[in-house]
Amino acid sequence: MPLSPSVIKSLKYIVGPDNCLDSKEDMACYAYDTTPDFKLPDAVVFPKTAQEVSAILDLANQKRFFVTPRGAGTGMTGGSVPARGGVVLAMTRFDRILEIDIDNMVAIVQPGVITGRFQKAVEEKGLFYPPDPSSAAVSTLGGNAAECAGGPRAVKYGVTRDYVLGLEVVLPTGEIVKTGVKTAKGVAGLDLTRLIIGSEGILGVITQLTLRLLPQPEAVGTLTAVFDTIGGAACAVCSIMRSGIIPRTLEYMDQAAVLCVENHLHAGLPVDAGAVLLIEVDGSTAEVSGVSARLASLLAAENAREVRTAGQGIEADLLWKARKTISPALFTYAPDKLNEDIVVPKSRIPDMVLRVAELSRKTGLTMVSFGHAGDGNIHVNIMYDRADADQREAAQKAVDAVFDYTLALGGTITGEHGVGTTKAAYLKHEISPPALALMKRIKTAFDPKGILNPGKIFDG
Amino acid sequence: MPLSPSVIKSLKYIVGPDNCLDSKEDMACYAYDTTPDFKLPDAVVFPKTAQEVSAILDLANQKRFFVTPRGAGTGMTGGSVPARGGVVLAMTRFDRILEIDIDNMVAIVQPGVITGRFQKAVEEKGLFYPPDPSSAAVSTLGGNAAECAGGPRAVKYGVTRDYVLGLEVVLPTGEIVKTGVKTAKGVAGLDLTRLIIGSEGILGVITQLTLRLLPQPEAVGTLTAVFDTIGGAACAVCSIMRSGIIPRTLEYMDQAAVLCVENHLHAGLPVDAGAVLLIEVDGSTAEVSGVSARLASLLAAENAREVRTAGQGIEADLLWKARKTISPALFTYAPDKLNEDIVVPKSRIPDMVLRVAELSRKTGLTMVSFGHAGDGNIHVNIMYDRADADQREAAQKAVDAVFDYTLALGGTITGEHGVGTTKAAYLKHEISPPALALMKRIKTAFDPKGILNPGKIFDG
Repeated sequence: MPLSPSVIKSLKYIVGPDNCLDSKEDMACYAYDTTPDFKLPDAVVFPKTAQEVSAILDLANQKRFFVTPRGAGTGMTGGSVPARGGVVLAMTRFDRILEIDIDNMVAIVQPGVITGRFQKAVEEKGLFYPPDPSSAAVSTLGGNAAECAGGPRAVKYGVTRDYVLGLEVVLPTGEIVKTGVKTAKGVAGLDLTRLIIGSEGILGVITQLTLRLLPQPEAVGTLTAVFDTIGGAACAVCSIMRSGIIPRTLEYMDQAAVLCVENHLHAGLPVDAGAVLLIEVDGSTAEVSGVSARLASLLAAENAREVRTAGQGIEADLLWKARKTISPALFTYAPDKLNEDIVVPKSRIPDMVLRVAELSRKTGLTMVSFGHAGDGNIHVNIMYDRADADQREAAQKAVDAVFDYTLALGGTITGEHGVGTTKAAYLKHEISPPALALMKRIKTAFDPKGILNPGKIFDG
Repeated sequence: MPLSPSVIKSLKYIVGPDNCLDSKEDMACYAYDTTPDFKLPDAVVFPKTAQEVSAILDLANQKRFFVTPRGAGTGMTGGSVPARGGVVLAMTRFDRILEIDIDNMVAIVQPGVITGRFQKAVEEKGLFYPPDPSSAAVSTLGGNAAECAGGPRAVKYGVTRDYVLGLEVVLPTGEIVKTGVKTAKGVAGLDLTRLIIGSEGILGVITQLTLRLLPQPEAVGTLTAVFDTIGGAACAVCSIMRSGIIPRTLEYMDQAAVLCVENHLHAGLPVDAGAVLLIEVDGSTAEVSGVSARLASLLAAENAREVRTAGQGIEADLLWKARKTISPALFTYAPDKLNEDIVVPKSRIPDMVLRVAELSRKTGLTMVSFGHAGDGNIHVNIMYDRADADQREAAQKAVDAVFDYTLALGGTITGEHGVGTTKAAYLKHEISPPALALMKRIKTAFDPKGILNPGKIFDG
């Protein structure tokens, strides 16, 4: 049901006529994320203040229309797609870093700030914001918080959740509330902050974040190791984790991923290798050199074909570029992909990796796996052609098999991408009926009229 | 209203007659925690399984009686006191460490396991469970999780929340649910795990915890620094935090605390000092020695009267014993204390410390402050005699003044002890009416009949 002219008029009154789009051409850019989902909204508004967001949500409750908040639209599971139409709340004008408090190592930011821009801003002051999702160059801090984004550094530093101390949030009922604290600790009342982090925009609209920062590590060292087989690389990952060393990243790419990136970048990557590990360690200069040496001998003992210790110069940059290029470069294999981000206990990575290889052989579909080996978070990409009914069915069955095996190993169907629309049908395989019913009651406690970001998580 | 004989009979049927107490003499031990609160329950039951807990909560919903879960009863804010009578659910028989998975650095435990026992068990396997509340020798992992206990190591390692990956919880409505994951990451559905952590036993009864572990650090170094004034010590804390060093603990004791402990232990502590800092660093052996040296010169530059680097032997043990003795030893000053655990931004510690000294002068009451300087978490203890009406009033006014100033500085009224009964009246100073109303709606979503742990947090 399209919005009535009087609602459009009210929206334009709230945000100003220049900050409301309602032509199809303009709105098409706000109809999708990185999933195949596409749904045109009925209007796109660009509020500038929490008060404007509050007025829009008030109106939505009165006039009964849906509102879907949106950062940069880089989500992997449809979280920012207006699944049932209504208004897209584009938060891009909330783009200010309000404060970087060096003494207390805390920053106050608006949700539309680009993550990469914020990382640079704090680094210039000798500080460090560890969360580093691969989308950091374009994604926003608000979107990262809504999805509880992870990224390669989670193995040592944790995820977005671990760096959000407090929020300003507009509740679906229109009230503007502050949650959490500005201090290192705080337990007053129920933990609304962490309930909202990772709730995929269904419980409130984040309008401000208080973020915890760390001192910038003195040095970072990078190592790469090339293995003949993916199983060999997976075993090396287990040995590293067992050794007591906690690298800040421990990424892997399988052969299909390496080949794909090499075709794209011509970086001289070893295309005949079964798998490549990309490892970063940080700390004091002495520590980095000591740990790097220990890692290098450990990797050699695990039969790595080649181990290289890269400096912080162009070489490490190139490897990271390769790692961050995989996701978009995959489309050279096939026009469509199903991108999952399962997590398994670290010791079960070899089992999962072999299972994916077996599924690929069986279905004839290219399956590329890469990701955050250090925390068992594997991005399994199943490449297929949606126009081909057989491939479509085979791909879907492969996803089912991957999820079933993940849960059988004691894992989870999503480590950092969320459930959104694309995994909503699978959530019940992981979460029991009474827990799901409780989540729905919590949603109702926040949003009695169900106006905020419908069609997601358990409302598929 | 006492429980009917038929309810007592049903309780005995559920847990077995030996696991249900209903005589006043027996129940007196389950009527209090470390606060002055004392309230006899109508029965104390000792369930052994989640199914038994579920049956008790089912019965409570049918027969309308209150249930208050209890670990070791070491809480600081009345969380385990049966404020409105009913049944105390003593979780002490849930005392098994079910699994320590070395490869995945994860443990599965029951909630009645004593924290200190668990720490030792994982250390024997080369692993490390960082949360270390001062009560660790007697408190339980379940109680730690319910209160989101902190402790000295939080400055580097975070609090209990940061080590709980998943839970088994019996909801107030009787369903047994699993929340969270067993893996390093996971974002499937709303974050029930972290909503329940720190909810002070009002949202569910924890019957199992999946805990994250770290590799044991190779070495730990301890430093002490003696300052002529508390202001000087507070400035040194700021300098340390600004230097980029993250010690694993950064504790301070003011003069009154040092004096009090010395009278108790005769350990040769400097009783004429304005304040003492107790610092631990950990990491590789080389790192610990390098950082210790840097800290020692930094402390000297900050005009420490004396800086000592202790080994890991008896000296460090003695200092920690002193630190952990403060809380009980304080009663030599006065028969009663009001013990607050405010947090202020680290840079404002000097302001807060001076304010407490001023309040002590004004009121004539001994005020002892000590705590986790590294994260701005100050335990302010106001010593008084409850039997003296003037002292009682002065003490209460001093608490009001401390809380007002804390909030004015951007702090929180509780860093790790929770709200419980003792701070319930103050919560509205920190949390706004719409946020409080939302918390109450969430409580209702979990516990529609309000049977679990009433009279706490916002139900004062």
